[in-house]
Amino acid sequence: MTETAQAAFKPGKGAGSTVGVALLGMGTVGAEVLRLLGERSDEFTARIGGPLEVRGIAVGDLSKPRPGVDRDLLTDDALGLVKRDDIDLVIEVIGGIDYPRQVVLAALRAGKSVVTANKALIAAHADDLAAAADESGVDLFFEAAVAAAIPVVGPLRRSLAGDKVNQVMGIVNGTTNFILDAMYHRGASYEEMLAEATELGYAEADPSADVDGYDAASKAAILASLAFHTRVSGENVHTEGIRDISVEDIDAAKAANSTIKLLAICERLVDDEGKESVSARVYPALVPTSHPLASVSESYNAVFVEAESAGRLMFYGNGAGGGPTASAVLGDVVAVARNIVHGGRGPGESTYAELPIADFGDVSTRYHVDMQVDDRTGVLAEVASVFAEQGVSLKTVRQEELRDGARLVVITHSAREADLENTVDKLKQLDAVMAINSVIRMEG
Amino acid sequence: MTETAQAAFKPGKGAGSTVGVALLGMGTVGAEVLRLLGERSDEFTARIGGPLEVRGIAVGDLSKPRPGVDRDLLTDDALGLVKRDDIDLVIEVIGGIDYPRQVVLAALRAGKSVVTANKALIAAHADDLAAAADESGVDLFFEAAVAAAIPVVGPLRRSLAGDKVNQVMGIVNGTTNFILDAMYHRGASYEEMLAEATELGYAEADPSADVDGYDAASKAAILASLAFHTRVSGENVHTEGIRDISVEDIDAAKAANSTIKLLAICERLVDDEGKESVSARVYPALVPTSHPLASVSESYNAVFVEAESAGRLMFYGNGAGGGPTASAVLGDVVAVARNIVHGGRGPGESTYAELPIADFGDVSTRYHVDMQVDDRTGVLAEVASVFAEQGVSLKTVRQEELRDGARLVVITHSAREADLENTVDKLKQLDAVMAINSVIRMEG
Repeated sequence: MTETAQAAFKPGKGAGSTVGVALLGMGTVGAEVLRLLGERSDEFTARIGGPLEVRGIAVGDLSKPRPGVDRDLLTDDALGLVKRDDIDLVIEVIGGIDYPRQVVLAALRAGKSVVTANKALIAAHADDLAAAADESGVDLFFEAAVAAAIPVVGPLRRSLAGDKVNQVMGIVNGTTNFILDAMYHRGASYEEMLAEATELGYAEADPSADVDGYDAASKAAILASLAFHTRVSGENVHTEGIRDISVEDIDAAKAANSTIKLLAICERLVDDEGKESVSARVYPALVPTSHPLASVSESYNAVFVEAESAGRLMFYGNGAGGGPTASAVLGDVVAVARNIVHGGRGPGESTYAELPIADFGDVSTRYHVDMQVDDRTGVLAEVASVFAEQGVSLKTVRQEELRDGARLVVITHSAREADLENTVDKLKQLDAVMAINSVIRMEG
Repeated sequence: MTETAQAAFKPGKGAGSTVGVALLGMGTVGAEVLRLLGERSDEFTARIGGPLEVRGIAVGDLSKPRPGVDRDLLTDDALGLVKRDDIDLVIEVIGGIDYPRQVVLAALRAGKSVVTANKALIAAHADDLAAAADESGVDLFFEAAVAAAIPVVGPLRRSLAGDKVNQVMGIVNGTTNFILDAMYHRGASYEEMLAEATELGYAEADPSADVDGYDAASKAAILASLAFHTRVSGENVHTEGIRDISVEDIDAAKAANSTIKLLAICERLVDDEGKESVSARVYPALVPTSHPLASVSESYNAVFVEAESAGRLMFYGNGAGGGPTASAVLGDVVAVARNIVHGGRGPGESTYAELPIADFGDVSTRYHVDMQVDDRTGVLAEVASVFAEQGVSLKTVRQEELRDGARLVVITHSAREADLENTVDKLKQLDAVMAINSVIRMEG
């Protein structure tokens, strides 16, 4: 459904009206949202034009002690809560996909606006959620789903609505950035830093969503959808994590005046005939130390946007945690509540461009290929000719002697993924190539 | 008028309706806006839900050749144009204050929404313009007025609407940043670099608005108003420019591992009794080279925001020029046009907090004081006791021998402006102090 179809929406309740709020989830973010709704209630009333009133809180476990929370507000029936007549606005901070999807759909269909911080939900089900919001003429806002308090959803949806975005590239997962940053600065291994991240509470007991890139992929899908007015879901994002990044890779990055970052990249591709397509991908990549993304340290996030008229923009800040996430949620709450009081509706999903998703093999980038080869005359020529046959041209070659053979590090010019993949396959078949130690992309 | 009073606004024209646009001004930005309105018209229609149609262009000189522009659209009667029934949305990119104020007021009173890039206008007359917009229930948007395409107005108005902003600090004038950056990196004088900036088109023939800080002061007023929900006008901003920054000051900055930047600083002050006030100020200041603002080079802009929940955020990009300014204008145009088609209204001026403007003397910061003193025993004690008497404590003292006397460079801990000013007055009265070479604040 394109924006053109979003015609009707509900009139406002009128200035001074109270907005009834349902809060779904009382984890770190939910508790902080509830606390701030109380602490800042006067400010919110002034900014909205009417007071917010939390009228129900859905939790999984009613018996758990929750000091300071009015027990009468608690319920374990989220579905029943969101349909209640006295609820205008639903804040979803449960997490997960299937259950929140069911509840959020029910809320939207019942004509309630929804604010969510749930990136996995939006990345997987933007289509039917947006359709339900359109049908009811209500808002579905999710600034907190990408990079917490750093405003990127708003700028892409609104500030850059008059521009043509060509690329969005960012560090959008704090856990992996913490691990890679520590590996770079302390020379430690992936396993050691993952253990430390878990201890510090940066990583979950099951770290897969972070370290395998799925969390970043959800965010990439959301960013690509907004940037290119095309529906991109998590499944469309080529995703590689950081589990295989070794101490040797970090050392190789240093030798190339670079660091390694897990990047989410959303790109508008244009082929020789001018046909446009969209690529969204997540992988660890070498980033030159002179690039601003290289200096994004610890668990910080940063997003670069390159647009035709605006040029290059960067947004930087704390991309996770209860406070920053609550800030983004509450910004959306104020905007949505204003619409409930005064009438009107924020920009909905915009997918009019309907660009095709590019085949990952057609994406072009540069590569850092680290291999172990026989140390004899003619090997370099053999290796170089394999690259040349696949149309991959070389930018730099560095060879060093090892106890057993030689190490050959090649940096390519921009080449197609498919061509690079063929090159690597062919290199593996060469007798002279003993091992391909790593193939890492280079960006920025 | 607070947001609570913004109740009524006009219903939408309906999906598919054409939005009639009047463009005021055909300078660099106006011409680029017009070009992009043509080039991106399909995208705009899809994003808005109805087409934009430029129905009139007001210019100062009708006889000037304007290739590619339909002459039938041109008029020199801006006031007549904005009142026409077929105009829904007015884009003001004339510049100046009095004349655009008259035209924008007329447009708002006639029920037309306005998008402007005019920082001086907004900083001087936000009060009656916002009141007129409120009365008519229309939008008055001005993202382009601060830092061009870098979204800062939107994030402060919307994304951070649920947070409590404590400080906004930024480099918001590209011309002065170009000059200071070149002085720092090339060791050149202010006069040389101003001449070069003028030649490159960065500086106007009369550079006063830039180099005396007035342009930055307008932006500081706008940022402070948005951040603190308090009306702050350009007159409330303590403003100092960069004309007096010498090669010696730059050298002193380097010796202190710092660079010099013209900063716009908006701060929420809290006194001992918890009473809040707002400070907005513009002055050149030492910024440590390790601070992200120090590496903002050439004519780039960057804005730091520190909010209670979000923590520190940074926005970075190209803060001037036809393309970036047009990008910001057109982002606003899409948002305003959506409201015209579908109904609804963006957040208006929000001044409910009505915090008092702090006296500049009550602002605290650190200082770098560079003076020439007699080179004899007891002078340092004399000087130090003057600081101590005014309650200004010293962080570092560096003394070096000169041919004639000694040079004494003092860096203070945070101190009140008024106390520092008294200190400097007293120092000047000391026989031992031959000259105060410079007093520069330190931030970041």
